[in-house]
Amino acid sequence: MAKVVLLPGDGIGPEILQEAKKVIHAVAKASQAEIDMQEYPIGGGAFDEFGAPLPQHTLEAAQKADAVLLAAVGGPKWDTLPGHQRPEKGLLELRKGLNAYANIRPVRCFSSLVGASTLRAEVVNNVDLVIIRELTGGVYFGEKKRWTEEQRFALDTLIYSEEEVRRIVKVGFETARQRRKHLTSVDKANVLDSSRMWREIVEEMKVDYPDVTVSHMLVDNCAMQLIRNPGQFDVVVTENMFGDILSDEASMLTGSIGMLPSASLGDQAGLYEPIHGSAPDIAGKGIANPCGIILSTAMMFRNSLGLSEYADKIEQAVNEILEEGYRTADLAGNDTDPSKILSTSAMGDRIVQKL
Amino acid sequence: MAKVVLLPGDGIGPEILQEAKKVIHAVAKASQAEIDMQEYPIGGGAFDEFGAPLPQHTLEAAQKADAVLLAAVGGPKWDTLPGHQRPEKGLLELRKGLNAYANIRPVRCFSSLVGASTLRAEVVNNVDLVIIRELTGGVYFGEKKRWTEEQRFALDTLIYSEEEVRRIVKVGFETARQRRKHLTSVDKANVLDSSRMWREIVEEMKVDYPDVTVSHMLVDNCAMQLIRNPGQFDVVVTENMFGDILSDEASMLTGSIGMLPSASLGDQAGLYEPIHGSAPDIAGKGIANPCGIILSTAMMFRNSLGLSEYADKIEQAVNEILEEGYRTADLAGNDTDPSKILSTSAMGDRIVQKL
Ligand SMILES: CC(C)[C@H](C(=O)O)[C@@H](O)C(=O)O
Ligand SMILES: CC(C)[C@H](C(=O)O)[C@@H](O)C(=O)O
Repeated sequence: MAKVVLLPGDGIGPEILQEAKKVIHAVAKASQAEIDMQEYPIGGGAFDEFGAPLPQHTLEAAQKADAVLLAAVGGPKWDTLPGHQRPEKGLLELRKGLNAYANIRPVRCFSSLVGASTLRAEVVNNVDLVIIRELTGGVYFGEKKRWTEEQRFALDTLIYSEEEVRRIVKVGFETARQRRKHLTSVDKANVLDSSRMWREIVEEMKVDYPDVTVSHMLVDNCAMQLIRNPGQFDVVVTENMFGDILSDEASMLTGSIGMLPSASLGDQAGLYEPIHGSAPDIAGKGIANPCGIILSTAMMFRNSLGLSEYADKIEQAVNEILEEGYRTADLAGNDTDPSKILSTSAMGDRIVQKL
Repeated sequence: MAKVVLLPGDGIGPEILQEAKKVIHAVAKASQAEIDMQEYPIGGGAFDEFGAPLPQHTLEAAQKADAVLLAAVGGPKWDTLPGHQRPEKGLLELRKGLNAYANIRPVRCFSSLVGASTLRAEVVNNVDLVIIRELTGGVYFGEKKRWTEEQRFALDTLIYSEEEVRRIVKVGFETARQRRKHLTSVDKANVLDSSRMWREIVEEMKVDYPDVTVSHMLVDNCAMQLIRNPGQFDVVVTENMFGDILSDEASMLTGSIGMLPSASLGDQAGLYEPIHGSAPDIAGKGIANPCGIILSTAMMFRNSLGLSEYADKIEQAVNEILEEGYRTADLAGNDTDPSKILSTSAMGDRIVQKL
């Protein structure tokens, strides 16, 4: 029996998770796999109820699970809490607690959504890249400090160990090997010591992957190249903060951040989440796009539950629905037939019908 | 007599600086202003010749000048030098030595270049934003460390003082006041202590600018919004590293990073530089785009030399040349008339003719 821990979180989280659950039920039925789903609190809601954004029982359940599916956390209500009580801190602790150091963010443009991107069709048409983001190190987890000494000061520490870099760069090389065999390592080696070590390690490791071509790119240049010529990228590997920024940016190649899934892998349960946030402005309206979490569910079936076949089917189903012209509000353009604009649950239902 | 220090630097630096000099000569002649130009070494070439990327005499000359015009530094030849000897370090020391903490990066799309952007015309058409980047603090200048303890480690420190934040945020508010009165402050307050202090200070200061509307945006979201809907931005203010990444990204709204100027202001000579780099791959070929440095020269006339009228004329001249269909290679598209593709010096000459 596969154990899946579900974390609805805040904002649109519960609404979109609902749709992912429909998909999991449908796959369980079709595959006859036994899938045990349990929901736990995380984020702002968890702080309100249990005084911590990642309650102990949530972490323990996640650590014992085969896979964890998270919707989204955060919202203005909790924005003024001190750092360690914020919803986002719950997410960071969960990533760390699962040692989920390798965040895999595929960026692919569904051909039916080419028109939804602000980039020209010929630029995004054949985009198919993966961003591999280091997820449990760097400035997110280094020492932080606030103090006053005549005036206020604040400090964050960007720190990496060789081992942390090696294991994520390895994921980069291995992912490239299974794809078009090109790895772009992104850093800021002209300024940062941590980036210089990163680049050194990539150079040392590349001898073991003679079949993969490697290039180094500065993060500022990469932010530009992703827009100038995204087709040049196959696999991008980078540290935590750069990966955060570049992957949100890259989502624009696909029309909507609402489409993009992610998997965070380490040596325990895989953690699956859409890359979009909790979108408090549209929470409760039933208009959120459930595709990001549904495609994350597909990644979960493939990577953690040994049900690749159903992962393919889910991705296929999403593609077909889009081809048929159905859109959630975020994907709708001037040329969308208004009768084809679907609510969150109607989109979920249509995807399930195809399975 | 106005003293201008010229720093050609590396790669395409000397070629494009040549064109800026033509423009300065033309303005001096037309305005009858006396402008004393002196060239000094910086970057990789300076390291080769003087053993330091910012020789003492270069810094001293810059500190005594009215304005400093820098082309670009860096190149593969110096990429393996230790951090403190790299060309980029010369640039960082110069910024610090001039206390040039406010880096102003206007992003405007010349209407004739709308077609050169990879974004759809309707998205970039009316882009007119300014990125105000903190330039002498943050992770660029905090303590750095490499050490080995069973394995290698590397550390960079992101540190800000209240005063550093206040003075740059002030530039943000004041710039907004002179424009469309909207300020977007970009941070990563859901993760970083330095960002939380930044946001606090912006909140404290906004009471003094009741005519300016302020919004806070997370850096990852901003990287996305710049592509999704750049028209929403007027003035963006942010810390050093975020500004580096976002301004390179934003350059893509204008067709080519080769077009974008910048000014770095503090309490001494203003430092003017194009935002593009030294482009070693095209150095010496005579095809580099001189518009970035020429438009930086315009900013210099406006901000440091009290010759705004000529700044306007230079900008107007660049605009006209583009309207006439002339392009450097980086701006040329499939529909560019090949006879209108100009070399670096031909582009400079045409601009000068208009003055
Ligand atoms: C919510 C936030 C802490 C998180 C991050 O920065 O990692 C989010 O932006 C993401 O990319 O998953
Ligand atoms: C050359 C480099 C150190 C520099 C920076 O990162 O500041 C450059 O990218 C810039 O934006 O001016």
